[in-house]
Amino acid sequence: MMRINLKLMCLCVCICLVFLSVSIWTRCGGEIPSFSPSFRIESFRRAQSLNSGNENGAFEEIDCHINGDYSIPCRKEGDEVYLPFSFIHKYFEVYGKMAVYDGYMRFEWSHSYSKVYFPKGRYDPRGVFLYFENYNVELRERVKCISATEGVPVSTQWESTGYYYPTQVAQFGLAHYSKNLTEPEPRSRIFDDGLTVFGNWSGKVSRENRHLVFNKRENESRDVHMLMDHVLDFVLTVELLLKAGDNSSFTVVLQSREKNEAWNLHYSCNSPLIHSEHQDVYHRIECNEGKWSFLVRDLLVDLQKGLAAQMKPKKKLLRSKFKVTAIKLGGSGKLANLTLSSSRHLEQFYLAADWLVKHQNPVTGGWLNPVRRKGPHGMKDLLPGWLSAMGQGHGMSLLARAYHKSKRPEYLKAGLLSLRPFHADSSSGGVLAHFMGSLPWYEEYPTEPPSFVLNGFIYSLIGLYDLLTLVPKSHEATVLFNQGMDSLKKLLPLFDNGSGSNYDLRHFALGAAPNIARWDYHATHVNQLLLLATIDNHTVLSSTAERWLGYMSGKRAQHN
Amino acid sequence: MMRINLKLMCLCVCICLVFLSVSIWTRCGGEIPSFSPSFRIESFRRAQSLNSGNENGAFEEIDCHINGDYSIPCRKEGDEVYLPFSFIHKYFEVYGKMAVYDGYMRFEWSHSYSKVYFPKGRYDPRGVFLYFENYNVELRERVKCISATEGVPVSTQWESTGYYYPTQVAQFGLAHYSKNLTEPEPRSRIFDDGLTVFGNWSGKVSRENRHLVFNKRENESRDVHMLMDHVLDFVLTVELLLKAGDNSSFTVVLQSREKNEAWNLHYSCNSPLIHSEHQDVYHRIECNEGKWSFLVRDLLVDLQKGLAAQMKPKKKLLRSKFKVTAIKLGGSGKLANLTLSSSRHLEQFYLAADWLVKHQNPVTGGWLNPVRRKGPHGMKDLLPGWLSAMGQGHGMSLLARAYHKSKRPEYLKAGLLSLRPFHADSSSGGVLAHFMGSLPWYEEYPTEPPSFVLNGFIYSLIGLYDLLTLVPKSHEATVLFNQGMDSLKKLLPLFDNGSGSNYDLRHFALGAAPNIARWDYHATHVNQLLLLATIDNHTVLSSTAERWLGYMSGKRAQHN
Repeated sequence: MMRINLKLMCLCVCICLVFLSVSIWTRCGGEIPSFSPSFRIESFRRAQSLNSGNENGAFEEIDCHINGDYSIPCRKEGDEVYLPFSFIHKYFEVYGKMAVYDGYMRFEWSHSYSKVYFPKGRYDPRGVFLYFENYNVELRERVKCISATEGVPVSTQWESTGYYYPTQVAQFGLAHYSKNLTEPEPRSRIFDDGLTVFGNWSGKVSRENRHLVFNKRENESRDVHMLMDHVLDFVLTVELLLKAGDNSSFTVVLQSREKNEAWNLHYSCNSPLIHSEHQDVYHRIECNEGKWSFLVRDLLVDLQKGLAAQMKPKKKLLRSKFKVTAIKLGGSGKLANLTLSSSRHLEQFYLAADWLVKHQNPVTGGWLNPVRRKGPHGMKDLLPGWLSAMGQGHGMSLLARAYHKSKRPEYLKAGLLSLRPFHADSSSGGVLAHFMGSLPWYEEYPTEPPSFVLNGFIYSLIGLYDLLTLVPKSHEATVLFNQGMDSLKKLLPLFDNGSGSNYDLRHFALGAAPNIARWDYHATHVNQLLLLATIDNHTVLSSTAERWLGYMSGKRAQHN
Repeated sequence: MMRINLKLMCLCVCICLVFLSVSIWTRCGGEIPSFSPSFRIESFRRAQSLNSGNENGAFEEIDCHINGDYSIPCRKEGDEVYLPFSFIHKYFEVYGKMAVYDGYMRFEWSHSYSKVYFPKGRYDPRGVFLYFENYNVELRERVKCISATEGVPVSTQWESTGYYYPTQVAQFGLAHYSKNLTEPEPRSRIFDDGLTVFGNWSGKVSRENRHLVFNKRENESRDVHMLMDHVLDFVLTVELLLKAGDNSSFTVVLQSREKNEAWNLHYSCNSPLIHSEHQDVYHRIECNEGKWSFLVRDLLVDLQKGLAAQMKPKKKLLRSKFKVTAIKLGGSGKLANLTLSSSRHLEQFYLAADWLVKHQNPVTGGWLNPVRRKGPHGMKDLLPGWLSAMGQGHGMSLLARAYHKSKRPEYLKAGLLSLRPFHADSSSGGVLAHFMGSLPWYEEYPTEPPSFVLNGFIYSLIGLYDLLTLVPKSHEATVLFNQGMDSLKKLLPLFDNGSGSNYDLRHFALGAAPNIARWDYHATHVNQLLLLATIDNHTVLSSTAERWLGYMSGKRAQHN
């Protein structure tokens, strides 16, 4: 009898186990292979009976029919339906990621991905330019390289061969100006100044005043060089006078601290703008007979652009991973004031300012954009030679700071000359358009019909503001600024789409859909309005900035 | 030994059972009471170990942090995070409900809640007015009653005592005109016409030509009455001539077919507009000595408004649930042509048209809105006496149809007179505003500053169109229509917010947030544009309609 009991008990236990696991498993919404209608009926009935007996509800699979168009798999628990974030992400373009800290995991939902910089006080036209201390113009993918002849970036945005884009040149300068104000004093080490420090050069060199003179003879096999072992500071400055005919070059050897890999950064008269092959990167420098070049080179940037030219792009090269192991001098020439520094922001800022002075059209005051820019559907292309109110405005912001810092009159003169395109219609070579034929607007892109790009317009206003603080109150800069601010205040609401902002008003001109600003442009709009609100207390500026800030965390304008 | 084995086995089985249920239960994300950090760490570790061993993943609870502002409880299954619809609904204002059909349950997600009516062909100014055959103006909550003196609705929208709102009067007429074209021929039963049918009246009555004459003596206790048992058709028409001094009244007894509850619908000279107490509902009718009244009464509407006046509102009274059991005649008067019909749309349409003719200002051509309308923040209130381009336009649409149908010249005359306010600025009593001082716009609300309400403007254009088809091509109606269409085509993009439409352009005038159109207004915009696209092939009309239709199922304008 005991045996029978035992068998019976085993059977009971088995049945219990199977029943229990099936029961809990189905409540889990466990993966079930068939989705036939009969299964669904079962699932529905089960859910009903389970829910009635369990106030926590049971998980189960349920289809969500989206606007009658398609279905996605959802989950149901009691009265609540759960939707997969992968769907929500695509449908609403919101962002989410897992985050583990304080010992547990949560899911972080973000309505937008951009950052707003709150002004610390009233905008100062001599201070940092917005939040540009955070910009690294040279690292942008569409920057081909920093020209070694000009010291400013070369863009590939609208033409892959590369060209000087005045807006970008100015941004480069403004970023370095801002970094100079916000970063700690740079470290600097002199390697040769012919006065207190003399480089440890191997090879045939001589001195002439404070200059090093090198002159490679044809039968010599080795270049003049100096070995070093320098870490962390990779911004090189040097004055050079290379002799054009002698295949002259200045070369820095950069080595990986971990691997035994070295790159040669060559600066020579015979290179193209930039060229890169294997371990060699070439930049062209100017070799005007008798005229010294002043080089400021961020060696890591030069290496990065060289790697990019070989289609081996790296996002950012960490300076802790490299060292400078040698300087080599090829051919014939002279050298002075060789240093390596942690940064040379002010020098780079002046290189940009000088570029603007040198390349400004003396008649129109414009900085030409030498490329064709394809117009969006319904708009004509911009032909090479167009001017940009944003480029002009950035130029003013840069030159006003350069004049403030240096008091050199050519900077102020160039800044004032750059006002001219603001008086000429965008249809005839200038940057001035009118909304509905009456409200003046300074066009970032002087399109036909006008496009009324918001961020470019505001940058041009900031440029005008930076300039007007240097001149008498009745000056044209003030007039242009005031009439622009008036237009901005009137038209700003047309950029508000109730859950974000419009990049431009092309929809008005073209009768098309609005061109919604992606979140980084939207954040730029907010940053710009916050800045303007510190110098003009019209409520439309601050209230719009506040509302637009709200849009970035999912707030919306009310419906009626 | 057997005893020991048995005990051991029992213990084993117990442990197994507990282990199994806990294991599966936790994979269900079963409700767990504590949310302390230590639980979370456990939960996280468990999830990691479970997920690695099971590609289906396990359900578990996880917090979703929303924009760093607050948290909601979510679910996680493998790599997917599930968000509760109750949150999504509030955050994005989308809609969802369970639906069971074809034997299973699914969750239906709707981006919007409104319906679009696609035109079947080119818009016909003699045909149905948009989709107004679906409108039941009289059932709207803000309609206090259908005046028994005028036969048109009385609004409480901006004044609770009630007033005639020309726009609503016209919509009432246009709805009945449209229903007349789309509904089947009405059923009608004559109860007394003094020619072929004679009512079975109890009490002292006589005949005079084809009229019934009743005259209650002071010492008589019972009113003249006729018993009946009439179902389904509840639109009563009768011609009445009540004697004012004798407390005269015409009463219909309406009874519930299920419960034994009856209501008396009284129409008398001494009532206020509408009054209701217990089982009695009173409507005032005109008792001009010697002048016949023509009553068209939807008895169920009259009962519904009576119940609403007693704060016992019911959404809709089903006609299958009622019957007419008696007509009573109190005091003295005459009666003719007593009928009950399933509908009397054309008669109700003409009542609205006649109201418009009668109440039009003969100098300005306007239909006054006799109420103050509170302006939104930043706008002045509209003072009693304002005109609406929408009311004027609806009036035109109605009168053009009345003229077409009847050929009575007073309808055309009134229609043409109603053009006058389109020439007068909204600031000086008219309805004309200008966007940026140049583009003409007909204002539904002649606010200061202008508000540029879209749907009201388009309704006014449709009114102009209806009218211009009756007059020579060079007529002012055509000029007004064409200049309005030109403005519409130019300004339409400013109403596009990339995921819906703006109700108006108040944000432009006020420097404020856009006033987003709720989905029913948005659907109205789409319906109106689809209509205009059948009479004008400018692409901005059809492409905007198509894009705005897309917004209703979650599509959005692209960002850059």
